[in-house]
Amino acid sequence: MKLTGEMLIGGRAVRGTEGTLHAVNPATGAELEPAFGGGTAQDVDAACSLAEAAFNPYRAVSLEKRAQFLETIAQGILDVGDALVERVMAESGLPRGRVEGERGRTVGQLRLFASLAREGRWLNAVVDRAMPERKPMPRADLRLQKIGVGPVAVFGASNFPLAFSVAGGDTAAALAAGCPVVAKSHSSHLGTSELVGRVVQQAVAECGLPEGVFSLLVGSGASVGEELVKHPAIQAVGFTGSRKVGRHLVALAAAREVPIPVYAEMSSINPVFLLPGALAERAEKIAQGLVDSVTLGTGQFCTKPGIVMGVAGADFDRFRATVQASVEAKASTTMLNSGIHRAYCNGAAEWGKDSGVRAVSSGSAQGGANAGQPMVFTTTAQHFLATPALLEEVFGPAAMLIECGSTGELVAIAKYINGQLTATLHLAESDTELARTLVPLLERKAGRVLVNGFPTGVEVAYAMVHGGPSPATSDSRATSVGAMSIERFLRPVCYQDFPAELLPEALQDANPLHLWRLVEGKLQQA
Amino acid sequence: MKLTGEMLIGGRAVRGTEGTLHAVNPATGAELEPAFGGGTAQDVDAACSLAEAAFNPYRAVSLEKRAQFLETIAQGILDVGDALVERVMAESGLPRGRVEGERGRTVGQLRLFASLAREGRWLNAVVDRAMPERKPMPRADLRLQKIGVGPVAVFGASNFPLAFSVAGGDTAAALAAGCPVVAKSHSSHLGTSELVGRVVQQAVAECGLPEGVFSLLVGSGASVGEELVKHPAIQAVGFTGSRKVGRHLVALAAAREVPIPVYAEMSSINPVFLLPGALAERAEKIAQGLVDSVTLGTGQFCTKPGIVMGVAGADFDRFRATVQASVEAKASTTMLNSGIHRAYCNGAAEWGKDSGVRAVSSGSAQGGANAGQPMVFTTTAQHFLATPALLEEVFGPAAMLIECGSTGELVAIAKYINGQLTATLHLAESDTELARTLVPLLERKAGRVLVNGFPTGVEVAYAMVHGGPSPATSDSRATSVGAMSIERFLRPVCYQDFPAELLPEALQDANPLHLWRLVEGKLQQA
Repeated sequence: MKLTGEMLIGGRAVRGTEGTLHAVNPATGAELEPAFGGGTAQDVDAACSLAEAAFNPYRAVSLEKRAQFLETIAQGILDVGDALVERVMAESGLPRGRVEGERGRTVGQLRLFASLAREGRWLNAVVDRAMPERKPMPRADLRLQKIGVGPVAVFGASNFPLAFSVAGGDTAAALAAGCPVVAKSHSSHLGTSELVGRVVQQAVAECGLPEGVFSLLVGSGASVGEELVKHPAIQAVGFTGSRKVGRHLVALAAAREVPIPVYAEMSSINPVFLLPGALAERAEKIAQGLVDSVTLGTGQFCTKPGIVMGVAGADFDRFRATVQASVEAKASTTMLNSGIHRAYCNGAAEWGKDSGVRAVSSGSAQGGANAGQPMVFTTTAQHFLATPALLEEVFGPAAMLIECGSTGELVAIAKYINGQLTATLHLAESDTELARTLVPLLERKAGRVLVNGFPTGVEVAYAMVHGGPSPATSDSRATSVGAMSIERFLRPVCYQDFPAELLPEALQDANPLHLWRLVEGKLQQA
Repeated sequence: MKLTGEMLIGGRAVRGTEGTLHAVNPATGAELEPAFGGGTAQDVDAACSLAEAAFNPYRAVSLEKRAQFLETIAQGILDVGDALVERVMAESGLPRGRVEGERGRTVGQLRLFASLAREGRWLNAVVDRAMPERKPMPRADLRLQKIGVGPVAVFGASNFPLAFSVAGGDTAAALAAGCPVVAKSHSSHLGTSELVGRVVQQAVAECGLPEGVFSLLVGSGASVGEELVKHPAIQAVGFTGSRKVGRHLVALAAAREVPIPVYAEMSSINPVFLLPGALAERAEKIAQGLVDSVTLGTGQFCTKPGIVMGVAGADFDRFRATVQASVEAKASTTMLNSGIHRAYCNGAAEWGKDSGVRAVSSGSAQGGANAGQPMVFTTTAQHFLATPALLEEVFGPAAMLIECGSTGELVAIAKYINGQLTATLHLAESDTELARTLVPLLERKAGRVLVNGFPTGVEVAYAMVHGGPSPATSDSRATSVGAMSIERFLRPVCYQDFPAELLPEALQDANPLHLWRLVEGKLQQA
């Protein structure tokens, strides 16, 4: 497949006319070919109008066909072969193993949503049959299903060029829900996005779906991103990125004549609580695991542990000493782009300037222009609790170790922190009582609470929650990873006294889709 | 039970110091005793702080206990007896039959949520067990449940002094979800609210729950309502009222440091489409049903049909003539308060001033100062489609009949209207094809689509959706009536690799709560 630098608007390839963009190899700083043309508001309108026109016919196709469509995309991504892996590596600086792993995850995610589409449990079919004899008033026949909200805008993320991008989790969930997708390429992965976009475009054609089911736009945040969020056809937005941009998109969406939900995943410092028993039992092992988690993928995961708390003493000292040695043994590795590298250096420099914070150690500084150097700092709970700036995420391979004067300060920090994607406890049997105090606090602060593990590595599963209270995301009721993420793009509709010939298939008496349904308040399957 | 005019802040009764409020009998204009003291920001803070303190202990009580608490409230409301019915009648102008019916509905709603609390399906328990042998990476043990979002603010509605008020649907759903409630009395039903509030306060004490599970505030929108929405302890808001106030609360909530969801149900004109076959078959019967629905409860239902479309011709003329006669036979009846009466008169006057609109008929004008006179107007589809002001709700016993030049104009109106709570089709067998065109359009515009009925009368059921796209509500993903309304006050949490002794009961291997759970992607019950 040859890259052309075009946008994909429905079935067409369109050369953008609003300036020229190039992806850049972050390891070398070299511009990558081809040049991409940026889109205009007219291009956004063309893509959104096609999506709007495609919505009713697309949601009317069978669940089986929707599933086949997702599977066709999955296979198509594999069929691009090594050209895709190499383009991702060139555009992101990520090593081959990570890219191949992410491709596997992306394909697996599409297949999971294919199976979900087939199964249809998310249709949430409910049947309350008429009670014509009920006194004092008869009851109408009431049936409920969920339908797609309408066309969805998906913004590619910087740190997952495949899994949170053009055919990533948001797109898979939206397409499974019956919603057309208008995606915007992340400017760092223009070539990757075109390769994947062409796979989706081809799958639309192969499956005989209306062309507007998928479009891929290229361009700046202001000329394409904002227009996309403001376009009346768009009914929901999926975004992963900075808090600043996320909040801006939320505000734009709220100011529309018809406001729409924005699912923005923004920032998290993923606190790790080391309980005394765990530290006494295995301080070194935890330290090694922590450093591996902090430096994995050059620390460029939303779930990278950013702050780590333990009670001061010999065990915490052993822990910190092992962290220090482990970090020193880590190499610097290329970050995703120069903007992220600059922000990382600035963030670490702010920590370094704070007189209440002390550097513990850093990894080797070798590497290219955008190499991210692992760094660990330390402070006291008192200083942390008095310094709101330390609640800000430093995106990259850095962490802050926080020394607490007592277990009471561990609890104080659990109460003090703001919304997070994850919170982690390391515990031994003797820590159970303290954990019973912390879990109810952390449940309120995070979408996922872990025991004796590290939060990096977000499994695509039925039980996954990748979300959390503000400012981690803009909507704590949602997850952007896992089966439940489909619910973001659905809304319920009740059908009252519909004749059989007009009832949606999911709600017909014979249950032709063999769905699990709630009938008169009882779950049952045909 | 004697009214004191106090607020209920946790277990205490507190005299408000910010001005004095009286309820008014809308039939007579007379102020009702006692005087109520308005609350201050300090009172809001006291109630919210108690709610925050109560959240963790309240959500830790057993589901059975939560259910008993809701049942205690339900019984308590009945036990107040006729004093409650009479106070509601005096404060609302509603007739006894309606008030007794609404009390029954309120009690039934509390009992439904008690049964839901017991059953726990809304916990949405999901179990994905660890796969330690999986290649290339082992899978952690992942389990998910939903928990309450935290304290919820509930604003009483003007038009349902019991069912959408202090112990109405929002409160029942929030309490079932494990969320403490801080309610604000509607200024029209201060006495009703105190009576019901004292029942809830007493139930909290009887059930041995933390006092902060419930508070009831009194006061102005600015001093109490806004402070409530802005209070950091509040995590969600339930509101039914005007679009202006609803949007204001949404904006306030979005501007918080931690934004929260506001579920505002605001306005709807509930379009009714009369298809040609139905009009030919039973124009007179539909006309009579329509007029009954428009004038029921003096038209003061969110689901009152406001616009009614049919194709011009002899059948539509018969329909309109029957509407005319039926309306003339209707009496004026007392509206809920003078503000609503004034807004109704203004809204109808605006229609009357529109040169493209013609009055069809009105009911008898007799009645007190706040009597709402039934009124029907008519216009053409062309004028309607060119006059955005006609999309505004006129709250009260008025409707607009819209004469279409063709079935194409029926479809054009279905495409043109904005978000609605309901949309209704009247059809005969010969209308099925046209209905197949209209249903996919109306599904996107309304939370509930009805066939051959009228939208007033919102059943509390599993399959009910009382919601819809903006501007009908602020969140089309939610319903404020029916079992699914509990989901507004929940968020998901994932528990990774939790030891058995720390796992929430809902997620323990033995399934001690006998919940329906999704285990490895399959629904099962213990």
